[in-house]
Amino acid sequence: MNYRAIFRFIALTLLIVAGLMIPALAISVIRHETASLHAFSGVIVGVGAVCLPVYLKTPQKSIRAREGYITVALAWILVSLVGCLPFFFSGAIPNFMDAFFESISGFTTTGASILVNINVMPKSLLYWRSFTHWIGGMGVLVFLLALAPSTGDSLFLMRAESPGPQVSKLVPKTRQSARILYIIYIGLTVLEFLLLWPDEKVGAFTALNIAISTAGTGGFAVNNAGLAGCSPYVQWVVTVFMLLFAVNFGIYYLMIMRSFRRASRNEELRLYAGIVLFAVITVTISVLPRYRGEFWTALRHASFQTATVISTTGFATADFNTWPTYAKIVLFLLMFIGGCAGSTGGGSKVSRVLILFRSVKLSLRKLLHPNNVSKVHMDGEAVPENTVAFVHVFYGAYFVILGISVLLVSLDGFSLETTLSSVVACLNNVGPGFDSVGPMGNYYHLSALSKAVLSLDMLLGRLEIFPVLMLLLPENWRRMHALPSAKAK
Amino acid sequence: MNYRAIFRFIALTLLIVAGLMIPALAISVIRHETASLHAFSGVIVGVGAVCLPVYLKTPQKSIRAREGYITVALAWILVSLVGCLPFFFSGAIPNFMDAFFESISGFTTTGASILVNINVMPKSLLYWRSFTHWIGGMGVLVFLLALAPSTGDSLFLMRAESPGPQVSKLVPKTRQSARILYIIYIGLTVLEFLLLWPDEKVGAFTALNIAISTAGTGGFAVNNAGLAGCSPYVQWVVTVFMLLFAVNFGIYYLMIMRSFRRASRNEELRLYAGIVLFAVITVTISVLPRYRGEFWTALRHASFQTATVISTTGFATADFNTWPTYAKIVLFLLMFIGGCAGSTGGGSKVSRVLILFRSVKLSLRKLLHPNNVSKVHMDGEAVPENTVAFVHVFYGAYFVILGISVLLVSLDGFSLETTLSSVVACLNNVGPGFDSVGPMGNYYHLSALSKAVLSLDMLLGRLEIFPVLMLLLPENWRRMHALPSAKAK
Repeated sequence: MNYRAIFRFIALTLLIVAGLMIPALAISVIRHETASLHAFSGVIVGVGAVCLPVYLKTPQKSIRAREGYITVALAWILVSLVGCLPFFFSGAIPNFMDAFFESISGFTTTGASILVNINVMPKSLLYWRSFTHWIGGMGVLVFLLALAPSTGDSLFLMRAESPGPQVSKLVPKTRQSARILYIIYIGLTVLEFLLLWPDEKVGAFTALNIAISTAGTGGFAVNNAGLAGCSPYVQWVVTVFMLLFAVNFGIYYLMIMRSFRRASRNEELRLYAGIVLFAVITVTISVLPRYRGEFWTALRHASFQTATVISTTGFATADFNTWPTYAKIVLFLLMFIGGCAGSTGGGSKVSRVLILFRSVKLSLRKLLHPNNVSKVHMDGEAVPENTVAFVHVFYGAYFVILGISVLLVSLDGFSLETTLSSVVACLNNVGPGFDSVGPMGNYYHLSALSKAVLSLDMLLGRLEIFPVLMLLLPENWRRMHALPSAKAK
Repeated sequence: MNYRAIFRFIALTLLIVAGLMIPALAISVIRHETASLHAFSGVIVGVGAVCLPVYLKTPQKSIRAREGYITVALAWILVSLVGCLPFFFSGAIPNFMDAFFESISGFTTTGASILVNINVMPKSLLYWRSFTHWIGGMGVLVFLLALAPSTGDSLFLMRAESPGPQVSKLVPKTRQSARILYIIYIGLTVLEFLLLWPDEKVGAFTALNIAISTAGTGGFAVNNAGLAGCSPYVQWVVTVFMLLFAVNFGIYYLMIMRSFRRASRNEELRLYAGIVLFAVITVTISVLPRYRGEFWTALRHASFQTATVISTTGFATADFNTWPTYAKIVLFLLMFIGGCAGSTGGGSKVSRVLILFRSVKLSLRKLLHPNNVSKVHMDGEAVPENTVAFVHVFYGAYFVILGISVLLVSLDGFSLETTLSSVVACLNNVGPGFDSVGPMGNYYHLSALSKAVLSLDMLLGRLEIFPVLMLLLPENWRRMHALPSAKAK
């Protein structure tokens, strides 16, 4: 175990996060928000004082698989800890567990909030809160890889942080891939901002916040009314961008490279589009009577909620708690599916669902013909058996984690709907669930234990389980000490 | 595809089922229940007239894997169809879908009922209803294998019908294994009957019905009060036997063979005992305030509900709908686990949960050491990789089926709790769920579509998915015509 490489990376990551607080600090200066000004400057100086020496004094080493997972999991926990300090020190969120919950919910792009009254929050903190979505969406370490002059061959880091069953670089160099991803990401974010800004009720600050929150598929709002208080135009723009940000960014790269045909043949994209279409149509029909037959209103709300849930953003324009059971169940099931691999969307990913479906079908055939050696295919290529196996293990671990979390959260004694949906919404990085944690509710009333469990679930969801489990397995730590001998074998 | 072998087996199975109706016919004669007398005798004569010629005129052929699955799935559907006819023809359940639902719920040992008033049902039909649990619990075809003079090497049949990730025969001969299973089964059922009979409020008829219903881990009651109206003594006896019938019958065989040490070292049994103990203790604590601190009452209800849910029996002594969220969630999670492999219990089986846990752990290790070749172990032996893969595929298919079923049932517009729990309770062969399908409710109010979906779920649950999926895959039917050439390869 190369602890030094881990320390160096984490120190660098925290320095970057502190650096990313500077715009928020600037906002607090401009708006004379003294408490947050002190908090931000204190955190930036503190992190600098601790992490800069560690970074400078630790020699560079390249990262291998084991260190990749551990680094990513540890980095995300520490980033969330540092990210929550401005909320806590400014006194805006006086309870530390609440501040941590809000911060990890931001970085993991969940958008589950403990804030009861958003309107009274200082603007600098609201901006920082939305910004955690943006940086967490594409990945803090991917950002670091894009920036850093040279970090060795760090594919392992990117693999551990990037969502989806298979991670491939867009171009041979990891750093170059990370840069392309961020360029596309920034481009789409700016485009959304420019489309939202002109709306008279929105303005620059809110448009920026909505854009970065959509980009990361996060879902934090900057006022109590949220997207429900915005014009249909804004809601439609956000609907489209939520759907766009849940698409594999590799598709956009293909389109930039003018490989339109390859892009349009992507099977994950087709399934994703099919699911969205199916959900929008059937949910519209289902909620039509609630909107007194007004087709366009029903379509707008159905499209928005479908987009917000499958992209795991979690913005709200309507209280789907009051919708018919069919619409609620569709949204509930979409939470499990989530966005495409290589997007900022959460959930278990469309491609994993696709691989699962195909492997079940293949297994039935293998039951009949035990000598059958055919493989699961996607986009015309055989999916490595190892990948298929890990998709299965992913779902296995996923449902075990779901079960254990639900058991722990149930100790709070809230309704079955609240208990179940809070875990599903956090594990899939959606944000709002049903009942008291629904789109018009929040997570404030849950116990500290539940908040801790749900924080862990958000992290498990964002990092797709394995890196976090690596960190949790005591066996793994024991074995680490024995690594040099294992390497000698 | 050997259609003749399939027809012969199914004809024989239906003849046996018709034969098994004779005691019910006798009860209708004794009790002067004219309508059911006509219904039973009509069905027995009709099935005999159709199936006897098919059976006699079809030459015997042995059954291979493909035919094993198809035979079992088809046989179960036809058995449920024949089994529902007495309810329908006697007029006791005038709606055919309802009669079929009740019948398949019986044979699959689910115990989900559409009966609103059990007290008015003729005794002969009540007996038949409970008896479907008994014969379905151990398996109609296993029964046939135990009876039939010679059916070739029919392990495939037994494998398709017997629950659990791995099916091994107790002794080298399939027929001998089937006989031993039924001898143990009858022995335990008689023992329970003898313990219940003396209770003054029970009597012979009710004791018999409770015993056969417990044995199959079914859960149909013979009066509206059900087990809630029985004495604590009866409730404790039933608790113990529900737990016993959800244990792998191979353990009892080991105990008969005096291999007590091997039996007690069985890892599935240990995990099962651990789960039961954990659930009983924590649920008792959770419900204690509801029973005004009366420890023994709380313990009795907690033990009964734990046993009834993990064994997937579904008897009720208390309305767990009104219990604290923690207790409800424990029961909900137990539904997914279910009994041990090779028992009459449903659910996904304790050994599958065990294999899933261990394979997740192993996969984490393999992520770090890709050359690691260690395997999942159970009871000191390596579990074949194929078995592990099928455990994963089982859970994958299981959750996909759960999602699709929930979506279809949600069209009825009942509450989320009713929608979710009805599917979970039927797919795991438990019976009662929460809210309106809870222990004090029933399935009468659901639409015909939901009843059809839940009937299919019950069958999928009882036959552990694969045989039924084989039947549903159109691809499979197309390929069957091509079998001779495939064989020639």
